[in-house]
Amino acid sequence: MSLLVQKYGGTSVASIERIKQVATRIARSKRTGNDLVVVVSAMAGETNRLLALAHEISELPDEREKDVLLASGEQVSVALLTLALKELGYRARSYLGHQVRIETDRAYGKARILSIDSTKILHAISAGEVVVVAGFQGVDEEDNITTLGRGGSDTSAVALAAFLNAQACEIFTDVEGVFTTDPGICPSARKLARISYDEMIELASTGAKVLEIRSVEFAKKFAVPVHVRSTFSDAEGTWLVSEEESMTDVLVSGVACDKNEAKITLVRVPDQPGLAARIFGPIADAHIVIDMIIQNASEDGTTDLTFTVSKADHKMALKIMEKTLPEVHAKGIKVDTEIAKVSVVGVGMRTHAGVAAKMFQVLAAEGINIEMISTSEIKISVVIDAKYSELAVRVLHEAFIGKQDAV
Amino acid sequence: MSLLVQKYGGTSVASIERIKQVATRIARSKRTGNDLVVVVSAMAGETNRLLALAHEISELPDEREKDVLLASGEQVSVALLTLALKELGYRARSYLGHQVRIETDRAYGKARILSIDSTKILHAISAGEVVVVAGFQGVDEEDNITTLGRGGSDTSAVALAAFLNAQACEIFTDVEGVFTTDPGICPSARKLARISYDEMIELASTGAKVLEIRSVEFAKKFAVPVHVRSTFSDAEGTWLVSEEESMTDVLVSGVACDKNEAKITLVRVPDQPGLAARIFGPIADAHIVIDMIIQNASEDGTTDLTFTVSKADHKMALKIMEKTLPEVHAKGIKVDTEIAKVSVVGVGMRTHAGVAAKMFQVLAAEGINIEMISTSEIKISVVIDAKYSELAVRVLHEAFIGKQDAV
Repeated sequence: MSLLVQKYGGTSVASIERIKQVATRIARSKRTGNDLVVVVSAMAGETNRLLALAHEISELPDEREKDVLLASGEQVSVALLTLALKELGYRARSYLGHQVRIETDRAYGKARILSIDSTKILHAISAGEVVVVAGFQGVDEEDNITTLGRGGSDTSAVALAAFLNAQACEIFTDVEGVFTTDPGICPSARKLARISYDEMIELASTGAKVLEIRSVEFAKKFAVPVHVRSTFSDAEGTWLVSEEESMTDVLVSGVACDKNEAKITLVRVPDQPGLAARIFGPIADAHIVIDMIIQNASEDGTTDLTFTVSKADHKMALKIMEKTLPEVHAKGIKVDTEIAKVSVVGVGMRTHAGVAAKMFQVLAAEGINIEMISTSEIKISVVIDAKYSELAVRVLHEAFIGKQDAV
Repeated sequence: MSLLVQKYGGTSVASIERIKQVATRIARSKRTGNDLVVVVSAMAGETNRLLALAHEISELPDEREKDVLLASGEQVSVALLTLALKELGYRARSYLGHQVRIETDRAYGKARILSIDSTKILHAISAGEVVVVAGFQGVDEEDNITTLGRGGSDTSAVALAAFLNAQACEIFTDVEGVFTTDPGICPSARKLARISYDEMIELASTGAKVLEIRSVEFAKKFAVPVHVRSTFSDAEGTWLVSEEESMTDVLVSGVACDKNEAKITLVRVPDQPGLAARIFGPIADAHIVIDMIIQNASEDGTTDLTFTVSKADHKMALKIMEKTLPEVHAKGIKVDTEIAKVSVVGVGMRTHAGVAAKMFQVLAAEGINIEMISTSEIKISVVIDAKYSELAVRVLHEAFIGKQDAV
């Protein structure tokens, strides 16, 4: 008998009809003898509906209360799915973050899971129950409700699989697996059978929306095999696994595009020691994650400092920068939300040179200007004008992946 | 400085616009120097929307999961109201049942409050915060979410006022107070300035929808002064207080009508000792509350046994009865959902005879047949055909109250 953690996203439970379908699928898996812990997101659209209510009241809603509000979405879906399982004659029981309990830090809206108490879940499982857990939510040590951020249910699922020592974590979604790039943009995109955690982390951080990055970090840390597959078919999806030797034969595994970032530039800041700390300290205090940073000193002793944050955070970041501005004697702030980050990812890059050069050539040939560059061992990202993003993805996929055989 | 508990019902927070209005009203009360604990219901319609979702899945949804589902409604409204208070510049903080914590028994859907831990609330108040508490919900000792039943937010508010030793509990609602009867049925109905707890308990149990009965029992037990008043005006409403001598001068304080009950009759049950226990035991085990019971022995050693339960419970009661039927050798079951319970209530009855006789005469004069009768020290209730309910209320109000001066 094996213990599986299954996660169903918002589109999989978007309506009562779909919730019943998911229940039927869970029942099928249960009948084959698996012990099951099921993690559910809010019904599709619900989180946005709740956010819209909050924004009718406040432009920048208090983070603690926003989490209380948003966590209600998963509360509804776990109850409904559990009802559907019971209606099919299965024993089932729902658990919220505070009941499990899933303890996080207090970074409202983007909390990190610190620990999961598996006692209640293991007890319910040994009593033959299907355990349905609310994704996306937890509580801090004082029982304040926290949420893990968009896609946080993936993290809930993988973290549960890790803490419960489950055989695998199945992520059910509305796509069939992880693709070499977005098939909606590039028709020659192919489903990958296997991908390494590291590649997936880079793909996730560069905008492939299949999985939330923290969930993959969790999976890597605890070596949880993750199976990304479709809710609507029984086909094998993509397995996330530790790196295998054969993987390095492939130069580029995927091309990703992220249009959810905004670029903020501090113009002509006097270049002094400690400058970056003074600028980024308050931003870190507000739990805003910075992605790329570029600083170029000019001749006159000043520097333009550019960084990117998620679009969701850019108003808050701007508010903080406006306070910092006089302190660091900057001449002004520029904001650009019309950017895209396009990335090529592959563990094969470690052993092959020239990927960056080829990438820049391919983009230059299409007349696409590169605004920022960032690299890691297995990834190269560039920030470009958002309007060229689809074109860039297509030409890069064609150049690096298009002629490869399926992995 | 006085501590007030204020409760706002579903219609008071039915939209973002109204939530903002409620926040403004709370702010006004806060500015006059009051410490405030605010209890909120779910936005009007939300509980029914959630129930409808559950019923799309199951005819008799599991009670535990139904409570998880319904409790999400108050979670949304406390978060939104707290956001609205913060937007007005006030310090505020929301608390759910498990956070406060409000501990109840495990009677899902109709749980009773056992204790409230006031530590967090008093701490927040001393920090100058307006405390916003989710009504209607609690947790049992194992952290399962429970709800208190329809109108349970009133109970939450009064219980908080009792445990916090508040000066008063203000129940804000969409009517201006407690009336001698429903003004929608009887135009000569008048608002009462004061009413005793006991009269209010009888009125509540007989269908006056202003307050949930448990909340009044709580208020009586802990002598909490309760002020029922309108959300939409500053006029004084009705004060619920301990009985005062002058109150007994008034024979009948109110006429109430309840159409939310159903009548179940077990036909021709052999009349044996222990019969009632065998019939009502399983119903009590299912936490179904029985209101009236009538048993009339016939000549042939059998008896017809009739009782009433709330319409919401009658299907479940019927299901249980069908199991009991062969055990008690009854000949059959009859159900009638088209009934109304009409009651006259007044502490003055204790010292005046003849109220019952007058009530039966008034109804007989209109040709209204009485199906069941139930009395208490300060109340007489009759069950009649539902179609005569409005007529009965009007003629009884005219006979007992119409010519009195305003109280």
